[in-house]
Amino acid sequence: MVVELLSGNKSFGGTQGVYMHRSDVLNVPAMNFAVYLPPQADRGPVPALLFLSGLTCSHENVMMKGHYQQACAKAGIAFIASDTSPRGDHVPNDTAYDLGQGAGFYLDAKRAPWSKHFKMESYLLDELISLCEHELPIETENMGITGHSMGGHGALTLALRHPGRFRSLSAFAPICAPSVVPWGKKAFNNYLGSNARDEWARHDATQLITSGARFDGEILVDVGAADGFLNDQLRPWLLSEACRLVGQPLTLREHAGYDHTYHFVASFMADHISFHAKVLLAK
Amino acid sequence: MVVELLSGNKSFGGTQGVYMHRSDVLNVPAMNFAVYLPPQADRGPVPALLFLSGLTCSHENVMMKGHYQQACAKAGIAFIASDTSPRGDHVPNDTAYDLGQGAGFYLDAKRAPWSKHFKMESYLLDELISLCEHELPIETENMGITGHSMGGHGALTLALRHPGRFRSLSAFAPICAPSVVPWGKKAFNNYLGSNARDEWARHDATQLITSGARFDGEILVDVGAADGFLNDQLRPWLLSEACRLVGQPLTLREHAGYDHTYHFVASFMADHISFHAKVLLAK
Repeated sequence: MVVELLSGNKSFGGTQGVYMHRSDVLNVPAMNFAVYLPPQADRGPVPALLFLSGLTCSHENVMMKGHYQQACAKAGIAFIASDTSPRGDHVPNDTAYDLGQGAGFYLDAKRAPWSKHFKMESYLLDELISLCEHELPIETENMGITGHSMGGHGALTLALRHPGRFRSLSAFAPICAPSVVPWGKKAFNNYLGSNARDEWARHDATQLITSGARFDGEILVDVGAADGFLNDQLRPWLLSEACRLVGQPLTLREHAGYDHTYHFVASFMADHISFHAKVLLAK
Repeated sequence: MVVELLSGNKSFGGTQGVYMHRSDVLNVPAMNFAVYLPPQADRGPVPALLFLSGLTCSHENVMMKGHYQQACAKAGIAFIASDTSPRGDHVPNDTAYDLGQGAGFYLDAKRAPWSKHFKMESYLLDELISLCEHELPIETENMGITGHSMGGHGALTLALRHPGRFRSLSAFAPICAPSVVPWGKKAFNNYLGSNARDEWARHDATQLITSGARFDGEILVDVGAADGFLNDQLRPWLLSEACRLVGQPLTLREHAGYDHTYHFVASFMADHISFHAKVLLAK
């Protein structure tokens, strides 16, 4: 596995890097990701927070607009920003913004034409984390996960599906019950198939909790009360109710006036990094 | 004068707005600017920091990548981000990135075809600040000014040319002696004329200081030691020497490893806001 540094900029005492690599899992010649290394990484491996972005985003949106660098520099935590899907001319796509490239939904697709490349769950767990372990000063056994919107869905489902893989878990405005909302239904229909409802349930945070999956620790979820997608696509109260019924610790905060944009994400990013740091730095 | 709110997003407890207005000074139907209003503005007018951006930028770059919102929310200071030139199909332009639209150099052009629209100095002082005073909860008599690169040049020269207009002054990687560097010489040749060396001197921070202009207070300038433009375009030591010779207080900080990008600007933005806040909040 070889990683090429595309750019490295000093930022808040650390380094904001952008990397490119060939992905065997996704079967594409070039995937990009961003890693912020805090100044503490000069002295040895540091814990990391993996961030999964929302529909249409690449690694770049949160890097430019997420305001995580200062808080990560203070805490001594690396920040890994993944892309949201495989990319390339030969990779299947759709003209809609919520299917295909930029809309991988952090699962391994089972149906053609998607199944050849759209394996974001395996990519993250088997390839990207491994790359970070071998090529960067990151303690990959000491990672938290978070994400925004579709990426919040990804953070919740990956942490619930792979107990022990991530030590801390939070989400910004996540799609909490994809099986019952338009974005999720469209993605699951295409990637998993309309007859695969059992499989849908295994990629739906609310249904995972209801079916017995647990996260070993508190889950933090922030949403904006002025988020236009709250009712139609996110439905955090479904997750909240599921957690309450089974005793899964969850803190759900609804912030007056905030919308779905990175203005919202940036406003609470330092809070989330503190939340993860408490777990990751405790060891 | 009418200002139209194009977007408003809650951010760190305040509001990040983007506004559009017709500009009589620039003679264009639509200019955009961004204003961050901290939560304190809900209770009445607040001091403001005017930020001038660098070549190719609009109001948007610093809004997305400057990381000023959190520090402004804390200090209770508004942040005004101007565009860098008049814009529009009927506005003269050049194929080069460092002349014409996106490269106004914060002066009033004297030569055709530029003189009809390129009047950024008058625009800022006579129109934009006035708009902010009438339309927004901003204490326009209590403003600081700063900027990046070409905008650092703008901040320095506007503050020196208009004593008393701005109460605090700083710059990120400013073009300190435009009369003797390629970016500045090209702009001054085109906007002011090759035979107008006296006029050049009146838009050159180093020459202004040498000729007797003073800023009533300390000037803060940050540069990155790994900035690829430091020697060829910025030359902060010329400004430093001029200030030293005449006793103008200047703090020039050279930061190891930092380049010319917004990664550098963001890293020291909170410092600059604190610097301005000390003056603006003291009254």
